[in-house]
Amino acid sequence: MVVVMRGSASDEDVTKVINAVGEVGGEAFVSRGKHQTIIGLVGDLTQFAELPLHAFPGVEDVIRVSKPYKLVSIETHPRPSTVWVGDVPIGRDTFTLLAGPCAVESEDQTRAACRMAKDAGASILRGGAYKPRTSPYAFQGLGEQGLDILADVSRELEMPFVTEVVTPADVETVAAKADMLQVGTRNMQNFQLLKEVGLAGKPVLLKRGMTATIDEWIMAAEYIAHTGNLQVVLCERGIRTYEPSTRNTLDVSAVPVAQSLTHLPVIIDPSHSGGKRDLVLPLTKAAIAVGADGVIIDVHPRPELALCDGPQALVTDDLIKLREVILRFTDAADREVATPTAGKQAGAWGRSAHV
Amino acid sequence: MVVVMRGSASDEDVTKVINAVGEVGGEAFVSRGKHQTIIGLVGDLTQFAELPLHAFPGVEDVIRVSKPYKLVSIETHPRPSTVWVGDVPIGRDTFTLLAGPCAVESEDQTRAACRMAKDAGASILRGGAYKPRTSPYAFQGLGEQGLDILADVSRELEMPFVTEVVTPADVETVAAKADMLQVGTRNMQNFQLLKEVGLAGKPVLLKRGMTATIDEWIMAAEYIAHTGNLQVVLCERGIRTYEPSTRNTLDVSAVPVAQSLTHLPVIIDPSHSGGKRDLVLPLTKAAIAVGADGVIIDVHPRPELALCDGPQALVTDDLIKLREVILRFTDAADREVATPTAGKQAGAWGRSAHV
Amino acid sequence: MVVVMRGSASDEDVTKVINAVGEVGGEAFVSRGKHQTIIGLVGDLTQFAELPLHAFPGVEDVIRVSKPYKLVSIETHPRPSTVWVGDVPIGRDTFTLLAGPCAVESEDQTRAACRMAKDAGASILRGGAYKPRTSPYAFQGLGEQGLDILADVSRELEMPFVTEVVTPADVETVAAKADMLQVGTRNMQNFQLLKEVGLAGKPVLLKRGMTATIDEWIMAAEYIAHTGNLQVVLCERGIRTYEPSTRNTLDVSAVPVAQSLTHLPVIIDPSHSGGKRDLVLPLTKAAIAVGADGVIIDVHPRPELALCDGPQALVTDDLIKLREVILRFTDAADREVATPTAGKQAGAWGRSAHV
Amino acid sequence: MVVVMRGSASDEDVTKVINAVGEVGGEAFVSRGKHQTIIGLVGDLTQFAELPLHAFPGVEDVIRVSKPYKLVSIETHPRPSTVWVGDVPIGRDTFTLLAGPCAVESEDQTRAACRMAKDAGASILRGGAYKPRTSPYAFQGLGEQGLDILADVSRELEMPFVTEVVTPADVETVAAKADMLQVGTRNMQNFQLLKEVGLAGKPVLLKRGMTATIDEWIMAAEYIAHTGNLQVVLCERGIRTYEPSTRNTLDVSAVPVAQSLTHLPVIIDPSHSGGKRDLVLPLTKAAIAVGADGVIIDVHPRPELALCDGPQALVTDDLIKLREVILRFTDAADREVATPTAGKQAGAWGRSAHV
Repeated sequence: MVVVMRGSASDEDVTKVINAVGEVGGEAFVSRGKHQTIIGLVGDLTQFAELPLHAFPGVEDVIRVSKPYKLVSIETHPRPSTVWVGDVPIGRDTFTLLAGPCAVESEDQTRAACRMAKDAGASILRGGAYKPRTSPYAFQGLGEQGLDILADVSRELEMPFVTEVVTPADVETVAAKADMLQVGTRNMQNFQLLKEVGLAGKPVLLKRGMTATIDEWIMAAEYIAHTGNLQVVLCERGIRTYEPSTRNTLDVSAVPVAQSLTHLPVIIDPSHSGGKRDLVLPLTKAAIAVGADGVIIDVHPRPELALCDGPQALVTDDLIKLREVILRFTDAADREVATPTAGKQAGAWGRSAHV
Repeated sequence: MVVVMRGSASDEDVTKVINAVGEVGGEAFVSRGKHQTIIGLVGDLTQFAELPLHAFPGVEDVIRVSKPYKLVSIETHPRPSTVWVGDVPIGRDTFTLLAGPCAVESEDQTRAACRMAKDAGASILRGGAYKPRTSPYAFQGLGEQGLDILADVSRELEMPFVTEVVTPADVETVAAKADMLQVGTRNMQNFQLLKEVGLAGKPVLLKRGMTATIDEWIMAAEYIAHTGNLQVVLCERGIRTYEPSTRNTLDVSAVPVAQSLTHLPVIIDPSHSGGKRDLVLPLTKAAIAVGADGVIIDVHPRPELALCDGPQALVTDDLIKLREVILRFTDAADREVATPTAGKQAGAWGRSAHV
Repeated sequence: MVVVMRGSASDEDVTKVINAVGEVGGEAFVSRGKHQTIIGLVGDLTQFAELPLHAFPGVEDVIRVSKPYKLVSIETHPRPSTVWVGDVPIGRDTFTLLAGPCAVESEDQTRAACRMAKDAGASILRGGAYKPRTSPYAFQGLGEQGLDILADVSRELEMPFVTEVVTPADVETVAAKADMLQVGTRNMQNFQLLKEVGLAGKPVLLKRGMTATIDEWIMAAEYIAHTGNLQVVLCERGIRTYEPSTRNTLDVSAVPVAQSLTHLPVIIDPSHSGGKRDLVLPLTKAAIAVGADGVIIDVHPRPELALCDGPQALVTDDLIKLREVILRFTDAADREVATPTAGKQAGAWGRSAHV
Repeated sequence: MVVVMRGSASDEDVTKVINAVGEVGGEAFVSRGKHQTIIGLVGDLTQFAELPLHAFPGVEDVIRVSKPYKLVSIETHPRPSTVWVGDVPIGRDTFTLLAGPCAVESEDQTRAACRMAKDAGASILRGGAYKPRTSPYAFQGLGEQGLDILADVSRELEMPFVTEVVTPADVETVAAKADMLQVGTRNMQNFQLLKEVGLAGKPVLLKRGMTATIDEWIMAAEYIAHTGNLQVVLCERGIRTYEPSTRNTLDVSAVPVAQSLTHLPVIIDPSHSGGKRDLVLPLTKAAIAVGADGVIIDVHPRPELALCDGPQALVTDDLIKLREVILRFTDAADREVATPTAGKQAGAWGRSAHV
């Protein structure tokens, strides 16, 4: 950390900072100039975290120069992790397609959508049983009944599934049936939910808050990791900007940036970021090209009947193109499309990545 | 609502929209031009909410022209509401000062900060027992013990208090002791929390999400109102923008805009928006001038020891100026500073505002 | 400045930075920790400006901790400046109302609007003869003819006027007739225009770019000051955010922040920021309360006929309220409303503020 | 366009709107509901552009539903254009690499950088002789001398070059030597510059304003087209958001969105958007994958000596990878890398694209 002193700061002000840093076990180095004095703090960031240096007399600014996360940091685990969902890997060596309906509306719609997903080459299913909706008057999801539908279809198709959990009280129920728990964009800083989801012991798909910085997003993963659960996959899904022509602005740069900071896999949601069917294929190509470890895509057998986010769902014709696009671009990117891998799962993640 | 058809849309596409609208009880009027056809939908917005018109063939865009909220809408209750916290009003006729420590750190610090608040003219106390922190390594609040300290000091000073609740499981505990429940900026779209807080029956202070639109913020209030609890106070606390010199950008225009859309009181948090002590007084003046129904301010007896947000807390010397500033500007704004009003509370809010 | 080295940086990398800094006459102090090395640079910022330290081997980040402007900095001139437009002051002791039509459409409309402005208590007129319009098909202003109309009305009413100049080639013509030159939000970083406007020797009204940081805005003022012309007034006019309910988001905090960084006067444009007539009065009150040195307001005798920005123009009835509001709130803020001051202008600015 | 009337609007208010629309030759269709009346306007948008409908009594909102541009619109020219720079095409069938130094600093540096560009497969050179810099104390470019260096190197290497022009007075000089004129991000709404650049008759590279919407960007292209010059290439270069870890946020979705609205080619600048060397290759891959018609890249023989934007310039080692990456991904995207095409240029653009 760096403490910048005001031009008017006294020697005593500088000494106070040095002493406070020393008391928590850090070291302070002073760069004293004519117009300005800068104090470099060296030591463990968590030592300084509780020091209210900003409020010390004579202090103009306090600048953090190292990252506040540890467990998920690439410095702690220089080798990228692979997270296993059932027997399907998500990691830097593969490219994983997760697909399914945005919301579970009925057994038929869910089965049809999931079959479409499988045909397109998906190896993990997605579907929403509990939906966070901005209006209390909108369809709120089928809840536990939706969860059962997903579990049935998942068994039928022999594919694991991820589903969103929106409140701590539901974590146990959802974790009992789902293979991976999703924390949505609006809950990225719902810290109690992060803790409960971490404790459930299942892999977690953590969407970036639609206005979270990359550091805040990784810090949310640290919350989960702090419970002892390192099976976290980060998902970029578009950020809120002033541009009105897309629902959100997909921040593709977030993929290489996050991959340079954390060992966790990073995937992209091209459906919710653009909010338009026509953008799903181009953004999927961009996701593969920029180095994402997977994509998660909405499909719907009849989007004009969808109770949620119909305009962005891919339909049958699109899926043939999707399959082809994924094959072509993963080839250029030198990635293998992930498929269920018998026998690999047992302990593989733990051994290879974190020992 | 307005449905804009693509230039290439067929007559059949237009007819499909008209029929779908008719089936849910709405009326559709067609404006057919050479290059473009526009369909105006007339009726109750909730009728159309579930129609996935965006995904209909030939549809280019669907534009909502009326507001999606009802219970909190100014159209439903043209007379502004007063929300009573204990026997203190927050509403359009008064200006209410809420003040206290950002976080409850100890009994002494809390008592000292609350006395400072009272001396400055506050009529409602604030203090955080449960803190949503972006780092799992940061001080998380004293929890229930902090709640007890607040309750004790509140009794001593004979002032009601507001405190944040961060997860549904804590609502009952907090509601048993606090006079008003705060939903923080990171939880504005934690829908389950909104519902539980609404059901607790206490007044609610709803902070605007730091990247929520005004419509989303009012819609979050509608969630609470939907449980039957209309005692909601909206709080603007700065929005996230690209400007780095302030923690957030205080959106003062949000006050008159929200007051033109809803009957709920709207207050401002000048401490968290600017993030700097020097900005608290100028932003408080701006808050009064722009028509806010109150402000909520951080104070701390020794901010250089604060475990949370020290740099923005007012100290003793500032409070004399704060008191003077509030008196001078409420006078210019023709507002009375709110004080506890014996006898008024019993049913007053219900009767005057919503019968 | 602070140079943050990568964990992997070698001693040689650190030495290279130290040497480069020494060569341009600065001093480098090293804070060497186990995980991280930080180098504090002390000296004149312009020394370091051309050093491409970011590209040095082993460098992770370079952080600027002091401000890049000098001539307009409060550190250079701790006493706030007063800028004189004709014989009307804009500065920290007064509150100045600038008002007039957004665009000069005809002699009659301009005269009527300017009389309205005068009646409301304005002491400086505003009006656009050259309009920067986002569409080539929109009304582009009357140009030189509009300038003549403004000059005539200005003489008639004995009030100085400010008008926008949009391209370097027009500066001479405009400066020959106007009392103050306006640089609009879209031209804040049109550096050639800034230079020409500075050289014209007339006072300059510099609007903040709608997406400029406060530092960039002040740096644009430095461009003008660099030509030897320190008569610059900064004008906050709303910034671009994701919030759709106002045209732009008025950043009131920018006023105290800019006033703490520069000696230049800072005013607010409540008409263009909100974009709605109903917001002009509340935002004017907020402007006075937050400490702005003036406001600039659109008026129009018949806004339903306006060729530009009609929806935000104040009409006759509003102006009586405007006058009253300004008197009431400047009184609370302990400011005097600026009026023409015979005899004060001659050299006053130079003498009082900058000797 | 759609006019939304207030609930309180009278029949007379509605009639006034209908009559005003009729007077300019448009047609108005009324959708009258219990709570709300909507008026659909049909006709040419430019008819309505000057009608100040927002200021009409009873009008709540005016919503534009069709695009304000014509000449550059895909509806006017459904076939995508190819713009020729010298004998090199930029268009939908090819992928064009433009590369060179950010700033021309000396003849040696320019020649070395341009050779690197050629070796990497570039077919058009780039280089800045006139630099728009945010500080008056920063290197401002070599001006005309830089232009001559570029012209010499361009001749030597037999490659056309693009260079930025920052003010109308320089257009003639620059157009006499350069093969393509660049309008930079800060000048995207410098309307006088757009006109002059258009009139110069050379192809134009129009960078998106760092906070411009896609519509505003295309509208700026319309300004140029309005002078009769349709040889405009759009360049996405990152937009300003709250995310601090990249210089700007590259908006890849802008490519397919702009390509669906205009017939003009759209390229990406992966150097300035990310602002970091490590991001240039991943963002170049994403650019090709999302369908961009080219990229423009900074190279520097010794970035640690660069006077401008050193941290993002590619160096020798990167260029071999760049070449390989471009070949691999253009192959996946079914695009041919653009090369000079003898004989095609003469009139080709006009004939194939716009007859």
